[in-house]
Formats: sequence, structure tokens, C-alpha cells
Amino acid sequence: DMNKIKLIYEGKAKKVYETDDPTLVIFEYKDSLTAFNAQKKDTMQGKGRLTNLISATFLKLLQDKGIPTHFVKLLDDNHQLVKRLKIIPLEVVVRNTSTGSLCKRLGVEEGLDLVPPLVEFYLKNDELGDPLVTEDHIRAFCFASKPQVEKMKELSLKVNDMLSKYLYERGIKLVDFKLEFGTDEEGNIYVADEISPDTCRFWDLSSKERLDKDRFRKDLGNVLEAYEEIWRRISQPKTTTQ
Amino acid sequence: DMNKIKLIYEGKAKKVYETDDPTLVIFEYKDSLTAFNAQKKDTMQGKGRLTNLISATFLKLLQDKGIPTHFVKLLDDNHQLVKRLKIIPLEVVVRNTSTGSLCKRLGVEEGLDLVPPLVEFYLKNDELGDPLVTEDHIRAFCFASKPQVEKMKELSLKVNDMLSKYLYERGIKLVDFKLEFGTDEEGNIYVADEISPDTCRFWDLSSKERLDKDRFRKDLGNVLEAYEEIWRRISQPKTTTQ
Ligand SMILES: Nc1ncnc2c1ncn2[C@@H]1O[C@H](COP(=O)(O)OP(=O)(O)O)[C@@H](O)[C@H]1O
Ligand SMILES: Nc1ncnc2c1ncn2[C@@H]1O[C@H](COP(=O)(O)OP(=O)(O)O)[C@@H](O)[C@H]1O
Ligand SMILES: [Mg+2]
Ligand SMILES: [Mg+2]
Repeated sequence: DMNKIKLIYEGKAKKVYETDDPTLVIFEYKDSLTAFNAQKKDTMQGKGRLTNLISATFLKLLQDKGIPTHFVKLLDDNHQLVKRLKIIPLEVVVRNTSTGSLCKRLGVEEGLDLVPPLVEFYLKNDELGDPLVTEDHIRAFCFASKPQVEKMKELSLKVNDMLSKYLYERGIKLVDFKLEFGTDEEGNIYVADEISPDTCRFWDLSSKERLDKDRFRKDLGNVLEAYEEIWRRISQPKTTTQ
Repeated sequence: DMNKIKLIYEGKAKKVYETDDPTLVIFEYKDSLTAFNAQKKDTMQGKGRLTNLISATFLKLLQDKGIPTHFVKLLDDNHQLVKRLKIIPLEVVVRNTSTGSLCKRLGVEEGLDLVPPLVEFYLKNDELGDPLVTEDHIRAFCFASKPQVEKMKELSLKVNDMLSKYLYERGIKLVDFKLEFGTDEEGNIYVADEISPDTCRFWDLSSKERLDKDRFRKDLGNVLEAYEEIWRRISQPKTTTQ
């Protein structure tokens, strides 16, 4: 079976390990929470388990619907096996409703419906604070190729449609989310990294209650409880949660 | 003739006056210099004359080459008459060489040739610090219409070609510049505001010396002398300056 051979990288939310298979890595989801480019930090026991299980569920769901993702299999509560990829240094954000940094940066109202959804690219660079980039910047500085940008947009919008529908049926509004993408040896593009309450905004459909990392960012309390609620709604059969 | 009837607006670099003709306004170019969203300020006697004369020269040149601009005529050393427009709340920046905020934001090298030129849109909003916006933001929040965005890009690139050539012949490299656009009652788009060492980066072709507001931003000294040098090179017949 799969063994952690060597720690390759320790990030803010996960540890990445080499395995016996050079094309695969193990993700260990950590209990740490960070926000505002790691200026705000905390640890919550059990959080890594929840983001691991939730992320695995979403990635598997997308995989089954034909979206290429790096997900291979869940190993245990805190570990999953994924394809080892070369990460494209861009974070793709899809927004269905205006909130957060978008409203602050542009002075626009909170809670506006964004139809069609807004797709943004940010340069993945913690030192620079993940700056927003335009497609012209991406081209000029070769952050990704034109076909890669087109593919990332296309996949992001498909992921948005699939997850929005899936979550809506479970009483959750998918407000926005961040995706990372990577390429294998042949240059094929996959959805990489994680999809969890750490990287998405989930609002309860009726109460509008925040069920994601905004509880941590804004000191709303009950962070772990919110993550648990997301896990409860997606791990139980749909009919019993409605 | 044209008289200043009423001050409509006092900005960082100019005063705008109503005239007897409701379709025209008078621009008074001020001697004040500001940078970094007006955190850095100074006054330099004679600066307003230079930006007025230089801007009038560039706008007239573009006008004569078929670019619609708001320029009507030069009135005196500090005043010019322009069409009164509704300003589109976007600043369009065209860059031929990487420098300034671009390099700082994206961590890219200074002095890279940008071919084709990079076109960026910034929301004209001092309170928000003129944030960068993508075309998707412009669409989502109706900062401008799609045809307006296309027209602004097309005109900006034409202005870049025309001014780059004109300046090159006078020993100056047009590194980057900012344009504003406005619309008349019929919705026609014009190049508005100013084109001067306050809104462009000019480098001496051989010495690479800065001949623009960067001398003020970076405390390089001889600010007024640099603006005078630009005025000298564009006001004298081309053949005598080579
Ligand atoms: N399939 C993959 N192969 C290799 N690296 C990946 C893969 N998916 C994600 N990564 C990278 O692994 C790291 C995951 O750890 P994380 O804690 O999220 O790091 P960070 O603090 O850099 O966001 C990230 O740098 C992410 O880009
Ligand atoms: N043709 C025009 N008609 C009306 N307003 C204009 C026109 N051209 C430029 N403006 C606006 O007039 C003001 C010029 O003054 P300025 O000192 O540059 O102001 P600011 O500090 O806002 O940049 C700007 O707000 C600019 O957008
Ligand atoms: Mg991460
Ligand atoms: Mg101005």
C-alpha cells in the first residue's frame, strides 16, 4: 500500500509527502487555520479531518462527472492520495455573489448576484499577497499559456455548475471558491489542491449563516461546528437532509 | 471669447471651469505635483505651464491624426479649452516596458519589453486607491459597456503607436502612460484629461534618464528641468533636436 516516504512541502493547510510511486503524493490535511495571507493563525483539533473528508468528497464527485482532478483515493481521516502535478502558479476564483475582498477592493455592494459568474485569476505568491492578474498579465509574463487559461476557465465554470447544484440540493449556497490547477508529464490539466470550507464560501440557503472560513476570518465563532455541518450535509443521503 | 464662469471641480493637477458654452470647459493646469494617491505632495512654480503646453501639443497631434480627443484650443500658458464630457470611471494604462507598480505588484523584472503592449484598466477611485480591474469586473459592475471597453483599448493602442513614434524621433522612449476617456451627449468616446510627464513615463533613449514624474516619486531631483526638456524636444522642429 501507500506509504509516506518523505515530506516534500509543508504549506499552511497541508503537508505533501512523496510515495513509492513518483507520480503520486500523499496530502496530510493539518488542523491549522490561516487567513489574510497567514497574518491570522490558529489550530483547531479535528479541522484537518473535516477538510480532508469534504475535499475528497467534492473531488470524487467532480471526477465522477468527468472533470479531471488529481484525486486518487481517500487513505484515512487525515490523508488522501493524489496525482503529483506541476502546479500552475495561479489561483482561479469563481464568484456567484459579491462579498469579501472583491467588495472591499472595488467598493461594490455585498451580496450582489453575479450572473454570469465572475472568474478571477490571482498570482499564487504569498510574498506578493496573491495579486490579482488580468489575462494580459498572464500572457505577458507567461504565468500560464493561453490554452491553459481557457481550459482553467472552462473547468472552473463547470466545477461551479456542478458544485452549486449539488450544494443547493443540500441547503447550501456556493458563494465563491478558489481552485488550483496542475499539469502532469504530458501537459494534461487537472483540478488540484483542495475544495473545502477553507477555500470556498458556503452560506446556509435560508438563514444565510456562514458555514466556512469566514467564521474564522471575522471571529464569528463555531468554526469547527460549521465545517462539521458541511460534512454532515454532504455525507448523509440527500433526502434525509431536506 | 472664452471666460471662466464657475469652478466646477478642483482636482490634484487641474481646475475645471464652466464657460458660456455648456459643451465646453476650461482646464487650468496647476503647479502642484502629487504621487502615491496624493500621499506625497509638492508645488513647483512653472510646472502647470509645462504640463498644459505639453498636453495641448500631444492632444492636438492625436486630433490631427484622426483620434477623437476633447482638445479644442490652447488659451494661454496655463489654460486650455476642452469639450465637456462625462468621464468613464476607468484609467487605461498602456505599458511598453515593465516598471513601477507593475513590477512591484507582480514581482517581475524592471525594463522588460512588453510586446504587444500591456493594456490595463484601473477603477478611477482615489478612496480605493485606483484598484486594477479585469474586463470581467468592468462587465459585472457596469463600469463601462463592452463596446466602450473595446473602443478604449483600440484608441489607447493607436495613441501608443502615434506617440511612441513621435517621441522616438525626439530621442524619447514612451515607457507607459495613462489615459482617461469621456463621452459626449451622443455617446461618442473621446480621449480626455491630460497627456504629460505627470501621466506618462518618458526615458531618454540613450541615457535612460527619467524625464517624468518618476523624478518626483523617487526624489531624483530636477523635476522641473525634466519637464522643460520634454517641452524643448517637442516644441522645437524635429531636425534641430536630433
Ligand atoms: N497534485 C498536486 N501535486 C503537487 N502539489 C500540489 C498538488 N495539489 C496542490 N499542490 C500544492 O501543494 C501545496 C498544498 O499545501 P497548502 O498547505 O495548501 O500550501 P500553501 O500554504 O502553499 O497554500 C500547495 O502549495 C499546492 O499548490
Ligand atoms: N473633458 C472633460 N470633461 C469633464 N471632466 C474631465 C474632462 N477631462 C478630464 N476630466 C476630469 O477632470 C478632472 C481633472 O482634474 P485632475 O486634477 O486631473 O483631477 P483628479 O485629482 O481627480 O485626477 C479629473 O477628475 C478628470 O477625470
Ligand atoms: Mg493552500
Ligand atoms: Mg487627474
